[in-house]
Amino acid sequence: MTDKKRVYLFEEGNATMRDLLGGKGANLAEMTNIGLPVPPGFTVTTEVCIDYIKQGKKMSAGLMDEIKDALAKVEEKMGRELGDPAKPLLVSVRSGAKFSMPGMMDTILNLGLNKATIDGIIKETNNPRFVWDAYRRFVMMFSDVAMGLSKEKFEHKFTELKTKLGAKQDTDVSADDLRKLVTETFLPMVKSELGREFPEDPMEQLELAIKAVFDSWDNPRAILYRNKEKISHDLGTAVNVQTMVFGNMGEDSGTGVAFTRNAATGEKKLYGEYLMNAQGEDVVAGVRTPMDIQELANQNPEIYKQFADIAQRLENHYRDMQDIEFTIQQGRLFILQCRSGKRTGMAAVRVAVEMVKEGLITKEEAIKGRVSPEQLEQTMHPRFKSKPADKVIAKGMNAGPGAAVGKIVLDSETAVEIAQKNPGEPLILVREETNPDDLGGMLASKGVLTSRGGRTSHAALVARQFGIPTICGCNEIKINHQTRTVSANGTILKEGDWISIDGSDGTVYTGQLPTEPPTESGEVGEMMKWADGFRKLGVRANADTPEQAAEAVELGAEGIGLCRTEHMFLGDRVPLVQKMILAENEADRQSALDALLPLQREDFVGIFKAMEGKPVTVRLIDPPLHEFLPSESELIEEVVTLRIKEPNSPRLPEAEKMLAAVRGMHEANPMLGLRGCRLSIYMPGIVQMQVAAIIGAACEVKKSGMDVHPEIMIPLIGHVNELTWVKSRLEKTAQETMKAEGCDVDYKFGTMIEIPRAALTADKVAAEASFFSFGTNDLTQMTYGISRDDAGKFMRLYIDEKIFPGDPTESIDRDGVGKLMKMCVEDAKKVNPTIKLGICGEHGGDPNSIEFCHMIGLNYVSCSPKRVPIARYAAAQANITLEVDGDK
Amino acid sequence: MTDKKRVYLFEEGNATMRDLLGGKGANLAEMTNIGLPVPPGFTVTTEVCIDYIKQGKKMSAGLMDEIKDALAKVEEKMGRELGDPAKPLLVSVRSGAKFSMPGMMDTILNLGLNKATIDGIIKETNNPRFVWDAYRRFVMMFSDVAMGLSKEKFEHKFTELKTKLGAKQDTDVSADDLRKLVTETFLPMVKSELGREFPEDPMEQLELAIKAVFDSWDNPRAILYRNKEKISHDLGTAVNVQTMVFGNMGEDSGTGVAFTRNAATGEKKLYGEYLMNAQGEDVVAGVRTPMDIQELANQNPEIYKQFADIAQRLENHYRDMQDIEFTIQQGRLFILQCRSGKRTGMAAVRVAVEMVKEGLITKEEAIKGRVSPEQLEQTMHPRFKSKPADKVIAKGMNAGPGAAVGKIVLDSETAVEIAQKNPGEPLILVREETNPDDLGGMLASKGVLTSRGGRTSHAALVARQFGIPTICGCNEIKINHQTRTVSANGTILKEGDWISIDGSDGTVYTGQLPTEPPTESGEVGEMMKWADGFRKLGVRANADTPEQAAEAVELGAEGIGLCRTEHMFLGDRVPLVQKMILAENEADRQSALDALLPLQREDFVGIFKAMEGKPVTVRLIDPPLHEFLPSESELIEEVVTLRIKEPNSPRLPEAEKMLAAVRGMHEANPMLGLRGCRLSIYMPGIVQMQVAAIIGAACEVKKSGMDVHPEIMIPLIGHVNELTWVKSRLEKTAQETMKAEGCDVDYKFGTMIEIPRAALTADKVAAEASFFSFGTNDLTQMTYGISRDDAGKFMRLYIDEKIFPGDPTESIDRDGVGKLMKMCVEDAKKVNPTIKLGICGEHGGDPNSIEFCHMIGLNYVSCSPKRVPIARYAAAQANITLEVDGDK
Repeated sequence: MTDKKRVYLFEEGNATMRDLLGGKGANLAEMTNIGLPVPPGFTVTTEVCIDYIKQGKKMSAGLMDEIKDALAKVEEKMGRELGDPAKPLLVSVRSGAKFSMPGMMDTILNLGLNKATIDGIIKETNNPRFVWDAYRRFVMMFSDVAMGLSKEKFEHKFTELKTKLGAKQDTDVSADDLRKLVTETFLPMVKSELGREFPEDPMEQLELAIKAVFDSWDNPRAILYRNKEKISHDLGTAVNVQTMVFGNMGEDSGTGVAFTRNAATGEKKLYGEYLMNAQGEDVVAGVRTPMDIQELANQNPEIYKQFADIAQRLENHYRDMQDIEFTIQQGRLFILQCRSGKRTGMAAVRVAVEMVKEGLITKEEAIKGRVSPEQLEQTMHPRFKSKPADKVIAKGMNAGPGAAVGKIVLDSETAVEIAQKNPGEPLILVREETNPDDLGGMLASKGVLTSRGGRTSHAALVARQFGIPTICGCNEIKINHQTRTVSANGTILKEGDWISIDGSDGTVYTGQLPTEPPTESGEVGEMMKWADGFRKLGVRANADTPEQAAEAVELGAEGIGLCRTEHMFLGDRVPLVQKMILAENEADRQSALDALLPLQREDFVGIFKAMEGKPVTVRLIDPPLHEFLPSESELIEEVVTLRIKEPNSPRLPEAEKMLAAVRGMHEANPMLGLRGCRLSIYMPGIVQMQVAAIIGAACEVKKSGMDVHPEIMIPLIGHVNELTWVKSRLEKTAQETMKAEGCDVDYKFGTMIEIPRAALTADKVAAEASFFSFGTNDLTQMTYGISRDDAGKFMRLYIDEKIFPGDPTESIDRDGVGKLMKMCVEDAKKVNPTIKLGICGEHGGDPNSIEFCHMIGLNYVSCSPKRVPIARYAAAQANITLEVDGDK
Repeated sequence: MTDKKRVYLFEEGNATMRDLLGGKGANLAEMTNIGLPVPPGFTVTTEVCIDYIKQGKKMSAGLMDEIKDALAKVEEKMGRELGDPAKPLLVSVRSGAKFSMPGMMDTILNLGLNKATIDGIIKETNNPRFVWDAYRRFVMMFSDVAMGLSKEKFEHKFTELKTKLGAKQDTDVSADDLRKLVTETFLPMVKSELGREFPEDPMEQLELAIKAVFDSWDNPRAILYRNKEKISHDLGTAVNVQTMVFGNMGEDSGTGVAFTRNAATGEKKLYGEYLMNAQGEDVVAGVRTPMDIQELANQNPEIYKQFADIAQRLENHYRDMQDIEFTIQQGRLFILQCRSGKRTGMAAVRVAVEMVKEGLITKEEAIKGRVSPEQLEQTMHPRFKSKPADKVIAKGMNAGPGAAVGKIVLDSETAVEIAQKNPGEPLILVREETNPDDLGGMLASKGVLTSRGGRTSHAALVARQFGIPTICGCNEIKINHQTRTVSANGTILKEGDWISIDGSDGTVYTGQLPTEPPTESGEVGEMMKWADGFRKLGVRANADTPEQAAEAVELGAEGIGLCRTEHMFLGDRVPLVQKMILAENEADRQSALDALLPLQREDFVGIFKAMEGKPVTVRLIDPPLHEFLPSESELIEEVVTLRIKEPNSPRLPEAEKMLAAVRGMHEANPMLGLRGCRLSIYMPGIVQMQVAAIIGAACEVKKSGMDVHPEIMIPLIGHVNELTWVKSRLEKTAQETMKAEGCDVDYKFGTMIEIPRAALTADKVAAEASFFSFGTNDLTQMTYGISRDDAGKFMRLYIDEKIFPGDPTESIDRDGVGKLMKMCVEDAKKVNPTIKLGICGEHGGDPNSIEFCHMIGLNYVSCSPKRVPIARYAAAQANITLEVDGDK
């Protein structure tokens, strides 16, 4: 252990040593080595911190000697010495971990001040107020961080003094008053509170400060932050000891922060702020209004040019936009920190595209590391201009991205009614939960807010499908249908009141927040073109109507991965569908089905035409039939009321009959009941009608001269025999339909893999299927034993308590569901090497899940039309990442 | 192919050649070789049949020559020839597959008769009526089987003739009338219907007959039978051609069937029937009453002794009880068939135990092959003495074995009321389905019949738990609560009418069928003692009360594998539980929990004491809380009615509040909702109370001087973090409780594996658990995506259509659920080699599943107390089978 180098002068390190020196230390070293004006200093490594913690918070033997050696070299370079009364060196002691944890750990500035050095610096600067204020800050900071005496006690005393003096700002307090405050109040308080003197010896100060920074690695807010950001707790922090420079030594001094390009727009132009005669914290605190960095060109063209050159050098050196902190001390420019600059989605895209064109980075680098899918997505949704905390009334799950502003409406009928009367009236539908009947109301609204259900609840699915901003599972919202009000944490809103919801982060606001529209600049298009060149995964869309199909093609979809047919049983077809369900004999049922056939055929013709010959995976009817009947509780209310009030009403026997039917079809767990292929086996007429419609439509389209490739997907297979049974009957229907049409079309039969057993027995199921499409919504629900409609109650608690690392309905759970998928893919390919494999669950639009789909070797992902670009992009990222870094 | 031997004389085969010669052929050969009087003959092999089918129903070249050669040897032995007018040989042509398929395939008797040989035999026997009757039978049988002319046409003509003659029985028709019938009616009918003559040439007859028998391998009933019995369709049948002997050649002739021991009781004494001057079919047809085989000792002591000696020889030879067919032809005894005799459960046990004692078989053989678990179970349930087909009114699922007779009662309250008024009044509870509230009603009844739900529905689970005969999912039953009647396939029964239900086979009868009580004879006890010596799997019981625990110990349970605690929240505790659920603040909730604690502690004290130191796995509360609240639809009815009729009733706001609470807790899929450990995380107070009760009770029992080993099982784990979270809190409760009691007890925490994800991530979960118990009810439901409460509608269809090879809630589905279990066991042992592994789903009492549990290396199975003996026995079978036969 003793032969490890524990202390690095800045000139001994470089940018690749982030593990050992932390991000800040590595960058300070790099900048020093490329000759930038960095105040000299050294870094104590993260390994020292790890040892310190392991040894029960004890410094390793000999460490302080190594620090002294390094310090001596800095002293030599500066011609100053720590504690030297004549020419004292002052240093800052800062944390700096591998990953940036802004503000989470501790810092001590101005270290080295004591009674003796104060006098020396006063003589040197002739600025006693500056020096006493620096000492005040040091005593406060050091006592707080290194000795454990709360800063508040000092601030309290300082405030008392300012009140006594009638001083408005710190700067109104004179040098003498500051001196008295520190020497007569602060230092005695340290003694009386802690029973020990404030350390005068600068080496003792330094040792205590380094320990304090190590200790701050494990302070509660740092731990919380690491948990949140998934940073390992074992990394430790480095400590940077650096010569102090001061921006507040007069009008020829100053300090600032600037980005090498515009962080909001990406424009290639310095972007930032500075203040003369000020310290870093003054820029942040906002007491004085900082100046635009461009002003510096006028105020001090020499320094500006120096800084602009350095900024350009750093950007070229790091090959990314940089965020740079600088200080001007008495006319001399120092660089204190540089790091990759945070930016908006728009800026990320523009910077990346322009850097590729400038030859600074490759296209692969641009896609892999410079624009995240989230950033790309930001360029595609409207958003709130600001997010005022005082208007937040509740938080829910961010279920459908985008911002929406509208008037509260509490049921779908009212929403539809208003929309018909005043088209364009912005509405937000607020419901406990939504069901298929609410589709009209949802489409009539700008946004949807529900108090139950999660990210894959019906509301969220439909919302994303139609691009409606949506918040789900917002438990804090209570709806009172009697008073037609919504209450949330004390705020009570009436139906018709304005609210604003941010479906991207789940926040609900009162009132109307201003939004800004999405801008799809030329750079986004360029980036997408590059992405398409890199990806191996196909991207399809989930689309149920010709309109959605057209939108999907527009957004780059290469087919439909999931066409849900249940919508074809809704709307004005409900009476026919109910007639079919309630039929008391086969003839009645068939006549209802016969009436539905031409309608559905027309639907498919529209979709096939919109897809222009691209493959279309049609899922046969999936939900249980009782979803098409009225609700039991409403029927009970009606029947009981009629029995008492209008026992002779002709509606009564009708309602009683419907109630009996609904009760007869009641299921304890409809998700696990008579639906999907089970329904096709129990009542084969429906899917025979569907296949006749699909193949009939395909023939019609083909005869019109277009190409068409229907892929018929049989849902909810758990046992291969279900597939064989259903497929053999539907093959017959397909053949008969083609014969009747006098036309042959290319069609396939396949299945959705959404039941764990189907995945477990893929070696059998794959032999009977031309394609598999992972229905990861249901597969996740069944693998976890969690119903999406009921998860709202505990999912947030689970995420908050870190029980689940994330919501498995959002990103594929690789350990569990993913393991099953991987097994399934391997087993399926063994028996059917040409099987086409895709995913059509909501995960198909999630970048992390798309990466996983790429890893396990799927052929395509399918997602809502609006997410197609994100999916195309994420697919490219996955391929680049895995080609470069190898399989994870 | 031509060098394969295709035809075996009986003396050329033996008993081991069942694959090639079929069961019947192999046994005929064996008997021939040990010197028994078997009429000579030969067997055409199953391979010939397979070739015949493969070649498109064509005989292989040269085959008939080989048959002629074999026939020539038989002819030589008999001194008779096929078709010889003077001394004609007559033969039978019978099927005989590897596995007995009684009556499914075809047989032709009396082959070789034609106009010429008839005359010869008449001369020989001087019994023209016998001969013409034999010819009549041959023509009918041959035309039907080999020529495809339905037997009914002939029977119709025969009946016409009998009517014309006024003959009551066949024997009333004279030789001459028979001759006329055959020559003037039958043979011309063959000609006119088929356009060809009935074949006169005996060799042509023989060839056609052999083909017909081969063809009958694939007749619809044979296929159905093989599907049902899971016999491969590729085996083919052999054909046995054997010299005819006749039991109807006079009073010195006869025929009979006898078992070497009593097939009903197992007593070692010949058991069977015979008739003199009769043919085999006469014994079966029941026209004449057959005589007891013991009578033969008086009637013909010589023949009896011969037969008894042969019977003994066959039993010794085959080392099993034999079922033997014999014919006496003119004073000479012939053995026509022998096979292992079918027997009742009681007989199987007694025969096996006595044969072990006689040294005929080993104990391993007795357990492995002589008594099936189903037979053992038969010895333990009451049963109906007979099963009259004319009283059957419906069929459902055999959900709880045993026979029950009682009066129909349509709801639980009425059942409880009647039981209180007239204790002992036999009732059958008939419901659409049952829920936890019905427990009282079920316990008050002798049997339960439901129209919905499957073998693992609540009704069935509780029924087996309490040994109540139960039929579930009996769709044919319709309950009308208005008229208080039950209708089934046209029969309408009133509440209070008698019905009888057989929970062992799912049959519902009208009226009172007589039952017989279970007899546990000494042999059963002996067999069980042997079994315990052979098994490696432990056997525990699922028991929720001290009474069940005591019963379980009595039946040999080595612990409790599942103590469900939800019953501890029912009964007179419901008001407290509802108070706890509806509490509006933590204090109210805690006070309700505090009141429940001593009550539950008392429950556990009782159970621990009953278990006498054996381990007790207690599952913490599992169901969703809304199960403890009233039903939503009943509340709606009440509220709507009160609003209209008694708007000022104080009950109205109360009911409205409850309705709001019930609606607030409504779940779309409660099985996948807020229950199990999710509930423990959402509302930790309940399980903390439970653990305080468990550990408190354990301390109390330990302090009383008894040993106690609670194993606390946390249900519904899907992610290891759930387990860690809950366990860490409950560990604290356990430690605090022990500290308060001043006592240390040995307890463990473990989890139920019932969610697929838990099984998939066993490598993580096992690190945090002392034991796993497979909850295969839920695991099967989630792996299949099938809710047990909703499966009734399609499960029978699935079984009937062979979509599922069996009901996966009955026997573990080895391909899917079993694969998951196997992976789980392997992964769990890798990270936690000492982990204790068990199963507590209903499968724990199913022999096939027990074998699987043994194979994958579980430590124990747990089942309802009544099934403990079966499980012990099946565990022994599994071990013997796998030790002898190796891993499958």
